[in-house]
Amino acid sequence: MALNVAQKLIKAHLVRGSLAPGEPIGLRIDQTLTQDATGTLAMLSLEAMKLDRVKTEVSVQYVDHNLLQVDNLNAEDHLFLESACRRFGLWYSPPGNGISHVVHMERFGRPGKSLLGSDSHTPAAGALCMLAIGAGGLDVALAMAGEPYAIAMPAILGVELIGELPPWVSAKDVILELLRRRGVAGGVGRIIEYHGQGLRALDAMDRHVIANMGAELGATTSLFPSDESTRRYLNAQGREEDWSAIAADPGCDYDECDLIDLSKLEPLIAKPSSPGNVVPVSEIAGLEISQSYIGSSANPGWRDFAIAAEIVRGHRVPPDVSFDVNPTSRQVLQALIADGRLGALLAAGARIHQTGCNGCIGMGQAPAIGRNSLRTTPRNFPGRSGTEEDAVFLCSPETAAASALAGKIVDPRTLSTPYPRLVEPMTPVSSFMLLEQPCPLREAREVKLVKGRNIHSLPEFDALPDTLDLPILLKMGDNVSTDEIMPAGAKVLPYRSNLEKIATFAFARIDPTYAERAGRDAARGHAVVGGKNYGQGSSREHAAAAPRCLGLRLVLAKSFARIHRQNLINYGVLPLRFVDPADYERLAAGDVLLVSHLRRSLQEGGPIIIESGGRRIETQHDLTADQIESILDGGVINRRRRHAA
Amino acid sequence: MALNVAQKLIKAHLVRGSLAPGEPIGLRIDQTLTQDATGTLAMLSLEAMKLDRVKTEVSVQYVDHNLLQVDNLNAEDHLFLESACRRFGLWYSPPGNGISHVVHMERFGRPGKSLLGSDSHTPAAGALCMLAIGAGGLDVALAMAGEPYAIAMPAILGVELIGELPPWVSAKDVILELLRRRGVAGGVGRIIEYHGQGLRALDAMDRHVIANMGAELGATTSLFPSDESTRRYLNAQGREEDWSAIAADPGCDYDECDLIDLSKLEPLIAKPSSPGNVVPVSEIAGLEISQSYIGSSANPGWRDFAIAAEIVRGHRVPPDVSFDVNPTSRQVLQALIADGRLGALLAAGARIHQTGCNGCIGMGQAPAIGRNSLRTTPRNFPGRSGTEEDAVFLCSPETAAASALAGKIVDPRTLSTPYPRLVEPMTPVSSFMLLEQPCPLREAREVKLVKGRNIHSLPEFDALPDTLDLPILLKMGDNVSTDEIMPAGAKVLPYRSNLEKIATFAFARIDPTYAERAGRDAARGHAVVGGKNYGQGSSREHAAAAPRCLGLRLVLAKSFARIHRQNLINYGVLPLRFVDPADYERLAAGDVLLVSHLRRSLQEGGPIIIESGGRRIETQHDLTADQIESILDGGVINRRRRHAA
Repeated sequence: MALNVAQKLIKAHLVRGSLAPGEPIGLRIDQTLTQDATGTLAMLSLEAMKLDRVKTEVSVQYVDHNLLQVDNLNAEDHLFLESACRRFGLWYSPPGNGISHVVHMERFGRPGKSLLGSDSHTPAAGALCMLAIGAGGLDVALAMAGEPYAIAMPAILGVELIGELPPWVSAKDVILELLRRRGVAGGVGRIIEYHGQGLRALDAMDRHVIANMGAELGATTSLFPSDESTRRYLNAQGREEDWSAIAADPGCDYDECDLIDLSKLEPLIAKPSSPGNVVPVSEIAGLEISQSYIGSSANPGWRDFAIAAEIVRGHRVPPDVSFDVNPTSRQVLQALIADGRLGALLAAGARIHQTGCNGCIGMGQAPAIGRNSLRTTPRNFPGRSGTEEDAVFLCSPETAAASALAGKIVDPRTLSTPYPRLVEPMTPVSSFMLLEQPCPLREAREVKLVKGRNIHSLPEFDALPDTLDLPILLKMGDNVSTDEIMPAGAKVLPYRSNLEKIATFAFARIDPTYAERAGRDAARGHAVVGGKNYGQGSSREHAAAAPRCLGLRLVLAKSFARIHRQNLINYGVLPLRFVDPADYERLAAGDVLLVSHLRRSLQEGGPIIIESGGRRIETQHDLTADQIESILDGGVINRRRRHAA
Repeated sequence: MALNVAQKLIKAHLVRGSLAPGEPIGLRIDQTLTQDATGTLAMLSLEAMKLDRVKTEVSVQYVDHNLLQVDNLNAEDHLFLESACRRFGLWYSPPGNGISHVVHMERFGRPGKSLLGSDSHTPAAGALCMLAIGAGGLDVALAMAGEPYAIAMPAILGVELIGELPPWVSAKDVILELLRRRGVAGGVGRIIEYHGQGLRALDAMDRHVIANMGAELGATTSLFPSDESTRRYLNAQGREEDWSAIAADPGCDYDECDLIDLSKLEPLIAKPSSPGNVVPVSEIAGLEISQSYIGSSANPGWRDFAIAAEIVRGHRVPPDVSFDVNPTSRQVLQALIADGRLGALLAAGARIHQTGCNGCIGMGQAPAIGRNSLRTTPRNFPGRSGTEEDAVFLCSPETAAASALAGKIVDPRTLSTPYPRLVEPMTPVSSFMLLEQPCPLREAREVKLVKGRNIHSLPEFDALPDTLDLPILLKMGDNVSTDEIMPAGAKVLPYRSNLEKIATFAFARIDPTYAERAGRDAARGHAVVGGKNYGQGSSREHAAAAPRCLGLRLVLAKSFARIHRQNLINYGVLPLRFVDPADYERLAAGDVLLVSHLRRSLQEGGPIIIESGGRRIETQHDLTADQIESILDGGVINRRRRHAA
């Protein structure tokens, strides 16, 4: 059977299941990537699993998110992560090396490998023909411990590229075009695979732009074949030996098809406040701006900065426009210094920021309220810039640079200068990579984790009893979000490496007495009742882990948001659905839920019967055997420890 | 009479008083400098004075402090300041240009001129033989409006430098030596004037290091003669025509004398948590460090970065040491890019941060609790780094770079390599300076100030009535600090451009009911009673302005801290001292203070009699005629407006 690239990569990593879309599958994970914001919990999970050493071929911990360091907490996280890398055998990439996705591509990306990363833009590595998927920190910790990653087999969307991009149009416009056509849910449940003759003119970093922002379509991942462009890129990194050709079989099928004629594209821009809100730049040209921002994993390559430098060279941005340049990796910054282009940006009035994620994730460079900010970043959700009532537009470096000079939105095709043609330097790779190599096992075993006062080991979680006798502490309505379950924000986030402390904020927006009431009788445990789509929104794991610390054992709801349900399972909380939604009305906070012979009922697979105040409530679960095992063990960490023992 | 340099400069700017130490004098101000943290209030003061255009030769507004932009407020301040510069005829230096003191020296520094700056390190310009003094934002606003600056004539401390610095010892060690000898109060009431044959080997930026940290001795300012080094520096800036020779007259006297033999100096370091806590580096060599920080106005020159680059070239800092490089100006950064030294720093593992004050004033780069942080910055007060319980050491770039490589404190003389000899490039000055020039007057009058929602014009303050009838709202003890009067911190600071809002936090640490009680009857007004040294600590003006908004008219205390007393006067609050401290005991919160014929009593200069509950309380004031006028007018802004009308 003729296979496309996605099917080939999945087949090569399949440990269970089949290639039929929707089928549950398990994937062997070759490499992992964690960043610092999600990495601390991942490392605490490794500690709780009592893992001796990672089982993957390559695992790398990057520090790229929390670089502002306005108090002690960021620096203490960095020291903890460095020690955890030495203890568990990961590579460590300290602050200053750059954004995980870019550095990973430079140093570790390898066609044909699978990569699980605790960052939603992990699929960027699809640019090098890696099967690269984003997941939660605990999921990535399990992958480091050698466990396969479980998903439903995605459908494969084949996007054929034909033609060649015209001047002033670049890779960012390609992915904006796909967002314009399909919207921010257009990739859900799918892998987007690019193919066709149009690929030839897109080099590896162009492909990174496109694969990275596949996340904005909700795609499981994005994929490019491994071809001469891939080889050229790896050669420039001094790693041509890591290259191998991977192409779709002639005559292969895709579950869905789309076609983009690159020669027909024009500069596009996503208006506030969604990456799917795409229009031609020409349609809104002339709007005044106060900021032009270059950088982030969505436009991370040398060429993205170099083209901006050529556009502004010899000109000057107005003093009321902040022209923020954010180098994406140490290597990219070195290249821009060496070829004089950093100097050109600086002479035009750029502010050169430290290497990292920075303003893309609201870490600095927040704009004024209501002032238009043009960015080459991947996302413009409301408030993500750090400013409530922000007005962020997403565009290419060409559009951002041309607009910076004018102080208003400019279609770069209207510039009078010829389109700069760039020749990428074959960057000489520094003799030492400024990554810390994994520590030899014998030394690793002697390493003590460096824990600032605010970094606490995960608590022990007990197994789920066979009989539950749980009071309902909260009854909630529909669409309760993880923001309501576990608030973020400056007051709460600093405690993300201290579960017991962060738990004191659980459900605070819904009922400020919850944490105190739950904590009082955590040993007995409790349940909460939700409506439809319980746990929607951010994927943050703390929304499951924190209430679990306070004794949450059962969530009974009309329906669950997918990721939060998985997080509940990972932390040993039983998610049950009402068979008859009318039963929801019959329950009240304070009622007690009784379940007997739980183990047998779960394993038999039929409905679970709950007794409450003399009534029988029928519930269902759809849990896989692995998930049932995790819940009964008190969470995946316990299950992992039991298996390891 | 033979004059020293300080006397020459003061004499040339004297508008009243004489050169006798302690005598009140008024100085004509040629240039002003404001930075963004203090500049917003200065610009709001210009607006309140209804000033049409600054009267100084040069006034420059820099943006170098609030660059983190974690929300909208910083960016809105920048836009406001830019518009205020256009309105009032200032130069505007946008974010990215660099630290005020460095950029001012590069572009505007001119031997023989006077400079008043709303930043305590303004005296750095003494390196170019400027009479440069730090002051509050309102004082600088008055100078922009053409008013002389009033101080007591300082004593002149002549420091003779002989010999030449040995290898691995640099300018920072000179000022650390002076701090070691004299401590952090060793310059109070003094101008430190350097002279002698040892000057020859200190170039203009070396002198900047020494003059800058004169602030750490509490000196009014520091001064160097204008000589060949000064000429060479101005020539490198393309401004040799701004140079003139200024030297002390042969046989001149100093009020005090000191002598430093440069050839006898060794690398020094200030231990936590005071710049006066100085010991030889060799004494604490071997202590582990987690951070090495290069930059700030205390080591701002090209050579300070270049020497660090030469020391780390070809080596690598350990992954658990954060090697933070903070370029001080766009020009310095350009030079480091052009000569390859930024690349060398980067290859050794440095994190290159944006150009500005940054971690020196706790804006990012905060270290872990209790971990040693080596910095080339001027101050290591507890918590200034952003971390409570920090451990910050102050040292030269040589010591910081050598220690970064080792991960522990190293006396750079113990390195096996020869001391790098540097030749400073004659930096070609960019054709446009990335400073916004003052707007022509006609256009300026059309400019509307750009005010984000949180930037409010100053309220109108009424004149002080001739009869006071004021309840005492607070009675406080000794040593009440401006931190207690007007807290800083993340909750309060964002409102520093919104006096009415920030006033709601006034005295909150002493009595949270104060703001509400005072505001209820602000029109009648009220008094507060303090003990000794009332208003000590930070010079923040809001500690006077905010209670004034709530109706404070009179502070009756045993004694006042100097700067807070001046701030009270500036905002029209009457500061009176008890003649008999025993009267303090007789007063209580809630008592009413009555003063009649206030104008006459103040002008006659005798004691002011207060009646309270049938008792007569004798008080005194020591106010100058100008100060009395300001208080009676309701503050210096009103006085200024009356004079201008």
